[in-house]
Amino acid sequence: MNGSVAVVGAGSWGTALAMVLADNGYDVRLWARRQEVADEITYRRTNEKYLPHVRLPEGIRATSDLQSVIEGQEHIFVVVPSGSFRETVRMMVPYVREDAFVAHATKGFDIQGYQRMSEVLQAELTQLTKRQIAVVSGPSHAEEVSRRLPTTVVVASAARATAERIQNLLMNNSFRVYTNPDVIGTELGGALKNIIALGCGLSDGLGFGDNAKAALMTRGLAEISRLGVKMGAAQLTFTGLAGVGDLVVTCTSQHSRNWRAGFLLGKGEKLDAVLRKMNMVVEGVRTTEIAYRLSAQYDVEMPITRAIYQVLFEGKEPMEAVEDLMERGRTHEMEEVARAVSLSWES
Amino acid sequence: MNGSVAVVGAGSWGTALAMVLADNGYDVRLWARRQEVADEITYRRTNEKYLPHVRLPEGIRATSDLQSVIEGQEHIFVVVPSGSFRETVRMMVPYVREDAFVAHATKGFDIQGYQRMSEVLQAELTQLTKRQIAVVSGPSHAEEVSRRLPTTVVVASAARATAERIQNLLMNNSFRVYTNPDVIGTELGGALKNIIALGCGLSDGLGFGDNAKAALMTRGLAEISRLGVKMGAAQLTFTGLAGVGDLVVTCTSQHSRNWRAGFLLGKGEKLDAVLRKMNMVVEGVRTTEIAYRLSAQYDVEMPITRAIYQVLFEGKEPMEAVEDLMERGRTHEMEEVARAVSLSWES
Repeated sequence: MNGSVAVVGAGSWGTALAMVLADNGYDVRLWARRQEVADEITYRRTNEKYLPHVRLPEGIRATSDLQSVIEGQEHIFVVVPSGSFRETVRMMVPYVREDAFVAHATKGFDIQGYQRMSEVLQAELTQLTKRQIAVVSGPSHAEEVSRRLPTTVVVASAARATAERIQNLLMNNSFRVYTNPDVIGTELGGALKNIIALGCGLSDGLGFGDNAKAALMTRGLAEISRLGVKMGAAQLTFTGLAGVGDLVVTCTSQHSRNWRAGFLLGKGEKLDAVLRKMNMVVEGVRTTEIAYRLSAQYDVEMPITRAIYQVLFEGKEPMEAVEDLMERGRTHEMEEVARAVSLSWES
Repeated sequence: MNGSVAVVGAGSWGTALAMVLADNGYDVRLWARRQEVADEITYRRTNEKYLPHVRLPEGIRATSDLQSVIEGQEHIFVVVPSGSFRETVRMMVPYVREDAFVAHATKGFDIQGYQRMSEVLQAELTQLTKRQIAVVSGPSHAEEVSRRLPTTVVVASAARATAERIQNLLMNNSFRVYTNPDVIGTELGGALKNIIALGCGLSDGLGFGDNAKAALMTRGLAEISRLGVKMGAAQLTFTGLAGVGDLVVTCTSQHSRNWRAGFLLGKGEKLDAVLRKMNMVVEGVRTTEIAYRLSAQYDVEMPITRAIYQVLFEGKEPMEAVEDLMERGRTHEMEEVARAVSLSWES
C-alpha cells in the first residue's frame, strides 16, 4: 500500500482514474454523488452505468459522504462535469488541507465569466496557491483506460514539483504521463476540441468525406490555437497530447457525444430535438457559444466556430455553413503566423 | 476553355487532379504509361482500375505519348509514384519549355540520396529554376476528390507567384487551395506521415485502442517535425494541412495501404508475407528505412520510427516494440522545444 488518494466524481473518467491509482497500489477513496452508485462500486465492484462490463480493483472504496473522502488527504483528484464543478468544489472547501495538492480532469468552462477549471479551484479553495493545483488532460477514452489499453496523458501545473507528484501517482506500464508547464493551453485544448468534434459530426452528417474532416480538424486546431495563444497558452501545447491528440481521438470516435450531436444536425434535425434525443449534456454546444464570445472578446478570427455557432443558434443551414467555409477568399496557409517565425517568400 | 494543362500520371491521384482541372475549364492532356488505360480514359471516360465507378469529364484527353502531352505546355503536373519519378522526369527533359511551371503531387523520397521530389525536378530539369517548381500536398483521398467532396490542399513553392499560379489552376468550390512558402516541410509531411500510418495499423493489429493511436499520431507528428526542422522545414507546416491534416486522413483510413500493412504485421504476419499479400508498393516501408537513416544523419531522436524499423527489418515483436515505447523514462512533453519558446516552469 502506497497510502491514500481521494477521487471526487464517479462518472466514467473519475472511475477509470480511480482504477489507475488502485492498480498503482493506492488506497482510493471515491466520491459518488448518489449513495447507490457508491454502494455498487464498493460492494459489487462494478459501475455499470458509466463503465459497463468492467470489474473494479479491490483498492477502491466509494461513498457519497464528501467529507470522509477528502478530509486529511494530501492528494485529491476532481473529476466532475464542468456544469457542476464549482458547486462540488464549494462543498469541498472546509475539508481540504492547506498543504493538499488538487488535480482536476474536467474539460470545459465554468459558466461564470467563462473561467477555466483551475481558475475555479483557485477562486474557491483559497487555502491553496496555484502551485498546488494541476490539470490532467489528453486523448483518453475512459473505457479503454479501464481495460488497461495503452494511454498517454498530460499533467500541467504552475509548479514542476506538483506536476511530477501527480505524474508519480498515475504513471504505470499502460498509462504514460507527460508533464507540461502550460496549464492554460492544456485546459483550453481539452475544452475547445469539442467544438471541432461537433463540426466533424456535422460534416459526416452532410455526407462529406475524410478529406473534409481532416481539413476541419486542421483548420479547427489552427483557430483554437490562435484563441489559446491570445488567452496566454503556449502554441506548442496545441501540437501535443492535450491538443492534436485529444482532438483526433474525439473527432474520429463515433462514440463522442459531440460528434453524434453534430451528425444529427447535419442530417437535418433541429438543435432542441437533438438535445432531447441525446438526453445528456453535449459539452460542445455550450463550448461553441463560449468560444464564439471569447473570439469577439480577444479579437481572434474563428471561422469554423462562427459557422457552427450560426448553425446551432441562428438556424443557418449546415450545408450553407460548409459552403461559406469553402468559398472564403484564397488564403495563404501561414499568413497569420508567418511573421512570428520570420518565414516568408523569397521574392 | 481556359487553355491547356498537362498531367503526367494517370493513377488515382493524377486522374483526380485532371478532373479538377477539367472541371475548371482547362483542356487537360493526361499521360498514362499504358496506351490501353489512355484509350479507356479518352474513349470510355473511365479509369476503372484507379477510380472505379467514376465518370470522367469531357475535357480530359489521355495518351501514352509523353511528348505530345507536355510539349509546348506552360503548366505541367507530375503525379507518378516516387519509385518511378526520376525515370519519368528524365523522359520529360527534352520537351519541357524553359518558361514552364512544373508542380508535382508525389509523396515519398527518391532512392538516390533520399532526395525530395522537388530536388529531383531541379536536378533533372536543368532548364528550370526552383522558382518554377511547386508541390501539391494535403489530406486528399483521390476517390473523394473525384466525387467532388470538399477537399483542401496546400501548394508550396519558393516563389509566391508560382504557388498562386498553381492555386488559380486548381481552386474551385469543392477544392480549396492554400499557399505556403515551405517546400521542404510540405514534401516531408506528405512522405513521413506514412511511417506513422504503418504504426497506427500495427497498434490496431495488436488490439490496442483509439487512445494508443492518438498518442502515436501526436508523438509521431512531434518526431517527424523534429526531423523536418533539422532538414530545413518550418515547424508550422507540420501543424497545417500537409502535416497534421494528411497524417489524420491517412492514419484513420482503413483504406490506407500503409495502415493495412501495419495491421497485418500487428496480427503477427511477417513482412515478406505482408508485402506479397498486398501486391502493391507500400510506400511507408521504404520511407521508414529512409527516415531511420536520416534520423542518424541529422542526429534526431525518433523513437517511434526506430521501433517500427526494428519490427520491419530486425524481427522485433510488435508487442515488445510498443512496450518499449510505453516504458521510456518519464518525460516532459515539451522538453526539447521549451527552450525555443522560452516556456518554462516558474520555480
